[in-house]
Amino acid sequence: MTAFTLDERLQRDGIPIASIGLCQLRLMNDRRWPWLILVPQRAGISEVYELTPLDQTMLTFETNMVATALKKVTGAEKINIGALGNIVRQLHVHIIARREGDPNWPGPVWGYGKAEPWPEQDHQAFASRILENL
Amino acid sequence: MTAFTLDERLQRDGIPIASIGLCQLRLMNDRRWPWLILVPQRAGISEVYELTPLDQTMLTFETNMVATALKKVTGAEKINIGALGNIVRQLHVHIIARREGDPNWPGPVWGYGKAEPWPEQDHQAFASRILENL
Repeated sequence: MTAFTLDERLQRDGIPIASIGLCQLRLMNDRRWPWLILVPQRAGISEVYELTPLDQTMLTFETNMVATALKKVTGAEKINIGALGNIVRQLHVHIIARREGDPNWPGPVWGYGKAEPWPEQDHQAFASRILENL
Repeated sequence: MTAFTLDERLQRDGIPIASIGLCQLRLMNDRRWPWLILVPQRAGISEVYELTPLDQTMLTFETNMVATALKKVTGAEKINIGALGNIVRQLHVHIIARREGDPNWPGPVWGYGKAEPWPEQDHQAFASRILENL
């Protein structure tokens, strides 16, 4: 069995926040939307159904814990959750806070325009607020 | 407590296939992609974390069962799963079969172009193949 290693593109596009039970929690380095991702630390998985039933349940639990914290911290109108993986095949779940009038609202965030990196201090402050609310 | 009634737009955009444990399974009436949705039959829910823990687990189970069947029937390269709800607030989970070169690949399907309705016979044949593989 191969050990889990984070995909290079996921590594480049995001900032690590924490390792929770199953997943690495990361903040996408794009301040246009409050945008978190969860990466199950399991090697060779690209679809949720390839995880064991227990891991699937863990992923659901962690996704909803993060979604609840994101809603609380941002006061967002809607949380968007998605596992696409058309570009990066390593399984990862997007959890994004959306509000009316944000970039591409009410359309999806994926593939829209160009990322705007967070200023260092801001992303650390945001990550701290998420962690406090997990 | 209000009874569950299916959102009008979800009703208009899709074709019912089956009622499985928690959810209604529907086929989106857009043959550009094999595109299913699951609607938990619970009133007043717009985020997954608003479901009870048991219902969350059921939704995960049903989502992965449908994703597995969709992969098997279509031989898709990637399954896309998403719960957005920016337009229709009633909780619904999209499960979509994607392949290289399909419309908007590798971008998301939501908000892209105009739906192309299925011919009646084709959607019935497709729905039957999904049901046989659940």
